Amino acid sequence: AGPFARSGLTPVDKIRELIRQSQEAKGQAYCPYSKFRVGAALLTDNDCYFKGCNVENACTNLGVCAERTAITKAVSEGHKTFKAIAIASDMEDKFISPCGACRQVMREFGSKWDVYMTKPDGSHKKMTVDELLPISFGPDDLSVKKINKN
Amino acid sequence: AGPFARSGLTPVDKIRELIRQSQEAKGQAYCPYSKFRVGAALLTDNDCYFKGCNVENACTNLGVCAERTAITKAVSEGHKTFKAIAIASDMEDKFISPCGACRQVMREFGSKWDVYMTKPDGSHKKMTVDELLPISFGPDDLSVKKINKN
Amino acid sequence: AGPFARSGLTPVDKIRELIRQSQEAKGQAYCPYSKFRVGAALLTDNDCYFKGCNVENACTNLGVCAERTAITKAVSEGHKTFKAIAIASDMEDKFISPCGACRQVMREFGSKWDVYMTKPDGSHKKMTVDELLPISFGPDDLSVKKINKN
Amino acid sequence: AGPFARSGLTPVDKIRELIRQSQEAKGQAYCPYSKFRVGAALLTDNDCYFKGCNVENACTNLGVCAERTAITKAVSEGHKTFKAIAIASDMEDKFISPCGACRQVMREFGSKWDVYMTKPDGSHKKMTVDELLPISFGPDDLSVKKINKN
Ligand SMILES: [Zn+2]
Ligand SMILES: [Zn+2]
Ligand SMILES: [Zn+2]
Ligand SMILES: [Zn+2]
Repeated sequence: AGPFARSGLTPVDKIRELIRQSQEAKGQAYCPYSKFRVGAALLTDNDCYFKGCNVENACTNLGVCAERTAITKAVSEGHKTFKAIAIASDMEDKFISPCGACRQVMREFGSKWDVYMTKPDGSHKKMTVDELLPISFGPDDLSVKKINKN
Repeated sequence: AGPFARSGLTPVDKIRELIRQSQEAKGQAYCPYSKFRVGAALLTDNDCYFKGCNVENACTNLGVCAERTAITKAVSEGHKTFKAIAIASDMEDKFISPCGACRQVMREFGSKWDVYMTKPDGSHKKMTVDELLPISFGPDDLSVKKINKN
Repeated sequence: AGPFARSGLTPVDKIRELIRQSQEAKGQAYCPYSKFRVGAALLTDNDCYFKGCNVENACTNLGVCAERTAITKAVSEGHKTFKAIAIASDMEDKFISPCGACRQVMREFGSKWDVYMTKPDGSHKKMTVDELLPISFGPDDLSVKKINKN
Repeated sequence: AGPFARSGLTPVDKIRELIRQSQEAKGQAYCPYSKFRVGAALLTDNDCYFKGCNVENACTNLGVCAERTAITKAVSEGHKTFKAIAIASDMEDKFISPCGACRQVMREFGSKWDVYMTKPDGSHKKMTVDELLPISFGPDDLSVKKINKN
């Protein structure tokens, strides 16, 4: 349980490890309603790993995705800068892609880090948060100049 | 209250009307916590207009955006095919952009329709849902072939 | 489409009408994933009716319940004070009960109004928002005295 | 980081420790928008502790509460049976109460466990999940007999 730093790994090895952890995380998915298991693993700036899975609810809109589980876990342990996240599902022929809500939560913590969308065989497609959520609404928008509302 | 069809309008006039309605919708925003007013107007395939605003909550994560308000309104009245949505805010120098969750809710009802991000002066930037949420997760993903979970 | 005021109805007739509308609203439910249809009808302080249904999403946690659809609709049309809401589902032998998120959204607009949980035969169980969400977190909590965080 | 079992503690000591951890968790709150810090600590059936905090988003409705952060963390590490959760905020004179969405997520994992609503001085009010979310909608509702939808 918990993150663990693996020093001495090359960048390529870290991503391989990240993808492996996303697949492992999938094993904890609580998805009795959709039966659609998803796992995610997050790599922080200082090489800690955080694993997340989807956690559903009988009121389906109160569930949460694997990616957000991993991110809130990391934040709750004091990590807010990320290098990469890997996502794993059971879809045999498709790279699992993050939903819009997860893209927005990723973007809260920067738009220039990497998202690895994977298949069960470990193959992957990489895109940045910015590529997945172009022209994004973000923290800066809340403080820009507003027109007079009167 | 409610949608109203405006026949006889040219496509350009319909978009101008849509943007006008998004600005009007902003006037109903319930946002005592963020003070960030947003309005949206949705144009259905058969030329009905639906207006939405953000509706916040003391538990901030239980609020909802203007775009989703407009879409759920339309669906609850039997409309599920859309031509365009316009979004309006009070940001003077920025086109208001939809959050990731709203992009995902738009995408549920098709990825080839238009999103007009506007400024208070009525100027706008147009993108399709697909451009705003590339490589999206969608309804089809739930029924594709899965690996054996053992 | 849209709300309509029915004057001249007795209080009992208004509730009967509200329950009828919640059942009608259920007919618009967009729930391809759960197949669990829910409808809601909201009665405003000035006797307008607003109908809502659940609107689901392929990313299941991005759906919204019928009750919240009805409430955000009403707010977007300028109504923020409510007398009652009725909820309808297809559960033959159970009164459909609102989820916690919907209770919180109801509570945002007051805790002393009525929730009618119904069965398909129109029979119902009535409780107030306050009874359904006791000791609630609400708007006032955001402005009470805080300890020094330093 | 991560949970840790503290054996040898009396039930009273465990709750004291749980409340202490909820206060500690508050220190990690990411709440630049509301400035309303909340912490939560969850005690599993086998005496592991999980800490959560609120994690907000520029799109305010995409944030998540401390209680849900703690619960999804525990589930992602394989824990689904809980004894108690403690919640802490900076409100000097009020016991912090969980929002409706958090009550629903608690209820997903049983309705007979304890919720400790605390003040910064460590004093608390205890209620069960069932008392906080009476007549709840839950997992069983999804499988009961439905009327024919035709
Ligand atoms: Zn997601
Ligand atoms: Zn949005
Ligand atoms: Zn609900
Ligand atoms: Zn909450």
